Amino acid sequence: MSQPTAAYAAHQPKDLLAPFGIDRREVGPGDVQIEIAFCGVCHTDLHFANNDWGASQYPLVPGHEVIGHVTAVGAEVKGFRAGDRAAVGCMVDSCGECEACRDDLEQYCYEGMTATYNSPTPDPGSLTFGGYSKRIVVKEEFVLRVPDNLELVGTAPLLCAGITTYSPLNHWKVGPGMRVGVVGLGGLGHMGVKFAHAMGAHTVMITTSASKGEDAKQLGADEVLLSTDTEAMAQQAGSFDFILNTIPVRHDVAPYLNLLHYNATMCVVGAVEPLDTVNAAQLVFGRKSLAGSLIGGIAETQQMLDFCGEHGITSDVETIRMDQINEAYERLVKGDVKYRFVIDMATLEE
Amino acid sequence: MSQPTAAYAAHQPKDLLAPFGIDRREVGPGDVQIEIAFCGVCHTDLHFANNDWGASQYPLVPGHEVIGHVTAVGAEVKGFRAGDRAAVGCMVDSCGECEACRDDLEQYCYEGMTATYNSPTPDPGSLTFGGYSKRIVVKEEFVLRVPDNLELVGTAPLLCAGITTYSPLNHWKVGPGMRVGVVGLGGLGHMGVKFAHAMGAHTVMITTSASKGEDAKQLGADEVLLSTDTEAMAQQAGSFDFILNTIPVRHDVAPYLNLLHYNATMCVVGAVEPLDTVNAAQLVFGRKSLAGSLIGGIAETQQMLDFCGEHGITSDVETIRMDQINEAYERLVKGDVKYRFVIDMATLEE
Repeated sequence: MSQPTAAYAAHQPKDLLAPFGIDRREVGPGDVQIEIAFCGVCHTDLHFANNDWGASQYPLVPGHEVIGHVTAVGAEVKGFRAGDRAAVGCMVDSCGECEACRDDLEQYCYEGMTATYNSPTPDPGSLTFGGYSKRIVVKEEFVLRVPDNLELVGTAPLLCAGITTYSPLNHWKVGPGMRVGVVGLGGLGHMGVKFAHAMGAHTVMITTSASKGEDAKQLGADEVLLSTDTEAMAQQAGSFDFILNTIPVRHDVAPYLNLLHYNATMCVVGAVEPLDTVNAAQLVFGRKSLAGSLIGGIAETQQMLDFCGEHGITSDVETIRMDQINEAYERLVKGDVKYRFVIDMATLEE
Repeated sequence: MSQPTAAYAAHQPKDLLAPFGIDRREVGPGDVQIEIAFCGVCHTDLHFANNDWGASQYPLVPGHEVIGHVTAVGAEVKGFRAGDRAAVGCMVDSCGECEACRDDLEQYCYEGMTATYNSPTPDPGSLTFGGYSKRIVVKEEFVLRVPDNLELVGTAPLLCAGITTYSPLNHWKVGPGMRVGVVGLGGLGHMGVKFAHAMGAHTVMITTSASKGEDAKQLGADEVLLSTDTEAMAQQAGSFDFILNTIPVRHDVAPYLNLLHYNATMCVVGAVEPLDTVNAAQLVFGRKSLAGSLIGGIAETQQMLDFCGEHGITSDVETIRMDQINEAYERLVKGDVKYRFVIDMATLEE
């Protein structure tokens, strides 16, 4: 379980702001304490700050793209020592014993994984608090190693936006000889383009916006397909071996399913809500699949970070001060960021 | 292309009934002529007879579960000779050159496969006519061999109901150690149960009807799950490695997606229409897939027939006379058949 030594709850009345030191956890024998250098701002943070999903418990400290340096380790910790770079993503614990955990898919833990924030801990009444904070204490098994060559600030978003896009591309074996579409160019989509390109696929940015298309080429897209261009969409019907769909809201998947080759899959990673009507005929005529995917397991997250180290991949970020978070949330809603806000935690006053 | 020497169009005014010998085709050098012993009655036949999909062209001769004996072969035919058992399924031709055809997936031919009935032929203005007929002429590549040990009448439905269920079970590698659900017990579902059982999977019939559940056990189901039993449905959440969904109409897939294990797929083979709202969250939390599948290629259809020969599998049928077809269609709509009507073609008067 994670617990910060300083906490921050955006968008909440003053009396709900988490006080400094709330539920502070001592560093146990298997724990790693991290001084947080940067924390990425995920759309999920805003949903929780606003209680959009009805699950928020205040005081609430968002943040699950956490990166910094180890400041202390417990006696049983073998993999980290003070001064090491370290990172924490969306999970800080899971049962460790169920089939999913044994399959290195802790995100699908049968008991429910412990999320980095707003998640109950085994201590009754306790919650986890996230990375908008000075420090965090997390059990070693859920702490990631950060390759030395990666700049910390751009690495923070890899812990959620990165693994969320890497995992399905990896699971569906994206690689050379494949034509891969990435729908949507935001925090997730821009990582999807970088990864699909680095994996050797012919990468196509699918977007409503010509200017986003141009941006995507800078990120590694080989080609741009404007989803508003019905002629181009018709011409490219059946031509995609895999599509990563990062649209974060309810939408009509029909135009994208139409782009899939027979036997191919479109994986949704942005929307976690009802989709517009799915016509079974689109799946039947071509043995197509509509799938979803949630972040990735801890081992795969480490694999993703190592892949980023080898390929020099980080997220494109805009660094903000902690006191700019509400403004950042407003810009996030408008899609006004290329492509991820990251909070410089040195700006959080203790 | 197929062309019958006798034709029958149910549910149509007398003057639209296909006359005997319409578009009769001589046996060309690469063709096989089959005297039809039996033809299965597929729900698709009824949709076409009624023009439910707006694509019917009259006169129309339904029937794509065709079985009988070879009566003549062209000079270039090597695989069949007069007297051989032979069968024809849903397709009688395809381009043979596109990627799908080269992949033995003629059902997804880029040019569109030529269906056994109501499909344009290369001769302008001509249509194919199906198996509710005395004879059919089909190019050799689309004629299937029938194992000697299988009774012809029960083998006819394998050509559509059989391959439609065998192909996804085969594609998703159903076998021992897997828990496989079959939703719906009709023409497709009863074959799904037989195949999943024969492939060695722990086979669960998922149905709204306790009596259908008992019937399914006779067909090889190891277990029955009543979809109306919310407690049982909740208990078995996440427990299925694959689900074959044979429901033939629009429905809510949510209760079935909830049954899938992480990484698992539900494949729709019955419905070719819009499904009720699909919630992406159900796919995301568990990396689940919703897929579809259409019949199978010719090579896989032969593989299925050979599998049936090895395992002694045929369809459970009710044999009817040709003049009972309208009554059979009415009973089909009510689901009043165990599990497939098959027309005895000796009862069609020439």
